[in-house]
Amino acid sequence: MKLATFAHGGKISYGAVIGNDIVDLGAKFGDRYPDLRSLLDGDGLAEAQRTIATATPGVSADDVTWLPVIPNPDKIICVGLNYRSHIGETGRTSAEERPVIFTRFAASQVGHLQSMICPVESERFDYEGELVAVIGKRGRRIAESDALDHVAGYSIYNDGSVRDFQLHTHQWGPGKNFEGTGAFGPWMVTSDAFGDPYTHNLTTRLNGAVMQDSSIGLMVFNIQAVIAYASTFTELLPGDVIVTGTPGGVGNARKPPIYMHDGDTVEVEITGIGTLRNPVVKERS
Amino acid sequence: MKLATFAHGGKISYGAVIGNDIVDLGAKFGDRYPDLRSLLDGDGLAEAQRTIATATPGVSADDVTWLPVIPNPDKIICVGLNYRSHIGETGRTSAEERPVIFTRFAASQVGHLQSMICPVESERFDYEGELVAVIGKRGRRIAESDALDHVAGYSIYNDGSVRDFQLHTHQWGPGKNFEGTGAFGPWMVTSDAFGDPYTHNLTTRLNGAVMQDSSIGLMVFNIQAVIAYASTFTELLPGDVIVTGTPGGVGNARKPPIYMHDGDTVEVEITGIGTLRNPVVKERS
Repeated sequence: MKLATFAHGGKISYGAVIGNDIVDLGAKFGDRYPDLRSLLDGDGLAEAQRTIATATPGVSADDVTWLPVIPNPDKIICVGLNYRSHIGETGRTSAEERPVIFTRFAASQVGHLQSMICPVESERFDYEGELVAVIGKRGRRIAESDALDHVAGYSIYNDGSVRDFQLHTHQWGPGKNFEGTGAFGPWMVTSDAFGDPYTHNLTTRLNGAVMQDSSIGLMVFNIQAVIAYASTFTELLPGDVIVTGTPGGVGNARKPPIYMHDGDTVEVEITGIGTLRNPVVKERS
Repeated sequence: MKLATFAHGGKISYGAVIGNDIVDLGAKFGDRYPDLRSLLDGDGLAEAQRTIATATPGVSADDVTWLPVIPNPDKIICVGLNYRSHIGETGRTSAEERPVIFTRFAASQVGHLQSMICPVESERFDYEGELVAVIGKRGRRIAESDALDHVAGYSIYNDGSVRDFQLHTHQWGPGKNFEGTGAFGPWMVTSDAFGDPYTHNLTTRLNGAVMQDSSIGLMVFNIQAVIAYASTFTELLPGDVIVTGTPGGVGNARKPPIYMHDGDTVEVEITGIGTLRNPVVKERS
């Protein structure tokens, strides 16, 4: 099942994407599950599955504005330096012994086809294609062996990074939290449909040219390890977003560097999910 | 005016603290301002001020459970390495050129007199006394000259830090986000009553012994500079919490180090606000 959050007819809702159509689940379940995040908790997913088996899709995907898959997560936990191909291009010689964790604020997110914003303060706006694990079941101190049971599904992130602000100090947050820089979509694919995450492949394209191309299986800390580590210190909740790191090929590491500019189109494709596509717009001062 | 969030008679509310009594503002304004965060936006503060001029306090401070002043902020933005006395004790020779920013999740917070939790995974639980600026007026790209107009009031934070997790990698988040480690209270003092922040003094005591003692005026990046910088990348909202950094004297930098243990009592006092006091409890495995 593919689940998305969208705006349609002036209202924000969520639903199941089937081909080019959407079953508006928010219209059916909104009283009990006001948003996709709440649907992921408990019996909502099973109810959604039963509903779409017989429902007639009421909305065309062409008529919606795609929003971040989870627009209002309690937490967005991002992993840095999680593919050796990326670790090497940053000049480092080895992985850290633990996952490198930083966070995003929800306000930094945009949906599929929405503009990613290069802020007025920088010319160094870079892409980072990443697999997302969306939490479906709450837990603290989750064992690695149980971790994938806590994942409701998988999606795609473009962890757009304002490199000069990221590197102002050793703490990366400022460069990872500009508004309109974190693209998340187009939908999430439930775990049963996505299957083994590590058999899938990620490709990032800038104006059609392949910039990143990696097997998801090359992660240093796999999703189980990241969930176990993060849940050591904080309880993971349904709808929490785990952004699992980017492979090599980022623009900042190229010689000469390549950044995203006004008018560019950036795409992140993950097999088994689809393609997250965003125009890049330079903010006017 | 002193404003606090508390639980009383099984309900969560907020109110104005007057001596040892509280005017329950949530009971009066709850339909329009469901929490303290929402009261800070717009005309709520002025209404509260008019109300307490004639109200009879209905609740004794002895009968409440103090909660984090803002239990549900949209963002908690923390500043690291913001006093030279602390920069030096970490082995660094100079301040960064920009504020060092990291974040907390709201779930890591506790209120005045609630237990600060030393997690089972660590013996290196350290205190950090800090001044908090609570945002009252939203804004993006706020000029330094306007920044203090965006502050509704000031409070006290004990930015309890699990040092081994903070230093697992170069990104500090894991050591700053254990549940029950960020004490915030007992109340906020509105800007008009607090006056010039830089004339005040901060003292941290562990079991009565003074561990940190500094003028707030010794900050490297003052509150205006931090607000201007943070609002460059993210819109600050009413109720957002800016934790402005800790002076020298942290336990981790002492020789030998001093950490907080089960049964300890830690206090952070800031002149013009009061004293945030917390027992330390070692979590049972």
